[in-house]
Amino acid sequence: MKFNRRAVSVEEAQRRVLSCASELDTEQVALEEAWGRWLAADIQADHPVPHFPRSGMDGYALRALDTAGASPASMAELEVLETIACGQLPTRKLGKGQASRIMTGACVPEGADAVVMLEQTNRRDSGPASAGDKVGVKREVRPGENITPVGYEIEQSETVLRKGERITAGEVAVLATFGHAAVPVYRRPKVAIISTGTELLQVTEAIQPGKIRNSNSHMIAALVREAGAVPVLFPPLPDHAETAIAGMEEAWSQADLMITTGGVSVGDYDILTEWFAAWPHEDNGSAGRRVLFNKVAMRPGSPTTAAVSEGRLLLALSGNPGACFVGYKLFAEPVLRAMQGAAAPVPRTCRAVLDVSFPKPSPFPRYVRACGRIEGGQLRVAPAGPDKSSMLKTVKDGTGLILIPAGGSGAVEGQLVDYIDFAMQR
Amino acid sequence: MKFNRRAVSVEEAQRRVLSCASELDTEQVALEEAWGRWLAADIQADHPVPHFPRSGMDGYALRALDTAGASPASMAELEVLETIACGQLPTRKLGKGQASRIMTGACVPEGADAVVMLEQTNRRDSGPASAGDKVGVKREVRPGENITPVGYEIEQSETVLRKGERITAGEVAVLATFGHAAVPVYRRPKVAIISTGTELLQVTEAIQPGKIRNSNSHMIAALVREAGAVPVLFPPLPDHAETAIAGMEEAWSQADLMITTGGVSVGDYDILTEWFAAWPHEDNGSAGRRVLFNKVAMRPGSPTTAAVSEGRLLLALSGNPGACFVGYKLFAEPVLRAMQGAAAPVPRTCRAVLDVSFPKPSPFPRYVRACGRIEGGQLRVAPAGPDKSSMLKTVKDGTGLILIPAGGSGAVEGQLVDYIDFAMQR
Repeated sequence: MKFNRRAVSVEEAQRRVLSCASELDTEQVALEEAWGRWLAADIQADHPVPHFPRSGMDGYALRALDTAGASPASMAELEVLETIACGQLPTRKLGKGQASRIMTGACVPEGADAVVMLEQTNRRDSGPASAGDKVGVKREVRPGENITPVGYEIEQSETVLRKGERITAGEVAVLATFGHAAVPVYRRPKVAIISTGTELLQVTEAIQPGKIRNSNSHMIAALVREAGAVPVLFPPLPDHAETAIAGMEEAWSQADLMITTGGVSVGDYDILTEWFAAWPHEDNGSAGRRVLFNKVAMRPGSPTTAAVSEGRLLLALSGNPGACFVGYKLFAEPVLRAMQGAAAPVPRTCRAVLDVSFPKPSPFPRYVRACGRIEGGQLRVAPAGPDKSSMLKTVKDGTGLILIPAGGSGAVEGQLVDYIDFAMQR
Repeated sequence: MKFNRRAVSVEEAQRRVLSCASELDTEQVALEEAWGRWLAADIQADHPVPHFPRSGMDGYALRALDTAGASPASMAELEVLETIACGQLPTRKLGKGQASRIMTGACVPEGADAVVMLEQTNRRDSGPASAGDKVGVKREVRPGENITPVGYEIEQSETVLRKGERITAGEVAVLATFGHAAVPVYRRPKVAIISTGTELLQVTEAIQPGKIRNSNSHMIAALVREAGAVPVLFPPLPDHAETAIAGMEEAWSQADLMITTGGVSVGDYDILTEWFAAWPHEDNGSAGRRVLFNKVAMRPGSPTTAAVSEGRLLLALSGNPGACFVGYKLFAEPVLRAMQGAAAPVPRTCRAVLDVSFPKPSPFPRYVRACGRIEGGQLRVAPAGPDKSSMLKTVKDGTGLILIPAGGSGAVEGQLVDYIDFAMQR
């Protein structure tokens, strides 16, 4: 049984887990807490921006016509009506030969069709202007100059943010502008994280012969936080089927998603493989607990397994840190993004220039932990280190994954390859 | 005074603020809380990785020599000594013609110099092996095959993480591996955020003629969080010098850094300009409260001002959202990163291909909010929208800043330009 697994493609595996990853409930959070969450509703502009004709300069609001032929030697002399500060409304309408002192961001008065910079008048160093003062304008001003018309940036009722966008600083600014002190977002998924393996020590334990400290749980917890979800760490479970399965059942029942690491390969103590053995498969169309896939056509991490029980997903990742990381990025992160309503849950692939040859053929598509850098306008990528699934260093140093297609003889320097850049996802 | 400002270059302005941005104290945080913080000490490996010769496969540990000439038709038959699970130590040393069943990640026994995959033996489907069983090996195995030697990945005492690295998932995995349940990090800077302007409404207020809701404070707060620091929002202050200055003095005294927005230009109500007028300047070499610069040779945001008082920095950014954002990215973010010990606080610039012409000359270098995308291995960038300093939409949509040098006539499509990609910073 454990050897006769049917591999599905990465894309098919993603399709299967995403079909079980429903959007969670929505909730309202304070604007201050909205950063990093996904928006659960479209946001419309409750007013145009600007909602009044706005001065783009500190200077004088005037009628462009009144400055015809003006120059430093022959200034257009205008009568000052008032001073308009930001947040104040003009009280006087401009007539022929009149101007009002105005600040950047203030409301342009009726009758004015342009603003001239203070520096282009003779009142630069004269201090505040009062009604009745005169101002000389040193050049011809074009109609419309330095005035932002109503709705120039954003129109009334325009959709300014869309459901499924992740909220970063720019979105926060837009939400504030349109009065959203409370923001509709998706609930954060609760993710149970369990590593299995009798070889695992807790971080606080001294190293022992044949044993290693559990790093996968902590790595996954950090990735889960990064994806906006809430990690719940459980202590590692030993390779004792009864104990481990009881522990996993308990954790799974409390979470929106359970992520396990280890125990999914073909070893005698691969207890997850044992646990899953009796469950029906996706192919059987069962609606209850079922395995979605137990082998993925990829390196590393081909034994990666996914299952679902009463709507709750389980992703059983490989125990090797590198394989565990790749499995998380390809399957768990999309699931967490989908649960939070992300418009584009699956990581985007782009094309990049391979910096060094990768002469390693593979029966399955290979996802190589890699470093990307921009040089001379090109995105150049190279493996982050030796491509061993156990390598922790390549997880730390990697900024993305190079995808080497199956078969062939690897890829050569200078060739364009598919690349998933972690930072460039939104 | 307010007109006779001497512009310093962006690089000089960065140098001046960074010279006042000392690393904050360090503290220990739990590993679970370390994500996003900056490491305050080098981390050395407390053991090599692996610290025992590790099997890379489920299979049989054996002596390569014993498999000479083996094939499916003429298998090498070996005597099984024991089964070695992960976390267990071998109890038997291998002699000639002997093998031990071994799991991925388990400790290779003395006497063995290779591991053969289970699938390449005749015991794939025979269930667990017991002492005295025989195993047939179907091919010649090379010495060293499927064994990771001690220290192959990481050597004992190797520096695995460096002071000044930001802690993400990979660093968390490394910290866990080497037993760091508590992690030395820099204290999070406390950042007071105040917007000034009588025109500013709170987010909860209804829109009023001539007034706008305060979005800058919230945008800055989100950016500050993103940079790992703690934002403390103060309500907006009116353009009344006495009130505003009292409010700012109070806020500044409580924070490691104060960021203000608005009030730094040449308008009659630009109260920060007024506040700073009496202070000595950097050029005077004063050790107390002083202005570091009050004009930067850049667009937008040339009135950006920085000051220091008793070691506490103040960054006074422009009130226009776009200029405010650019000022934050160029000056505030590097300061917050430096305070947290970041090895490379200033945003890195790369070269990118300009996607559309930008025919706008500028007396100062211009930082254009832009969108970058990878196409055919090239990083192609284009302005995120009309380049007006007030534009909120370009803040939301921008993924970086294009730098157009001063003078000339802008830049043309296809040209390589300097570009700061926000996501690609570490």
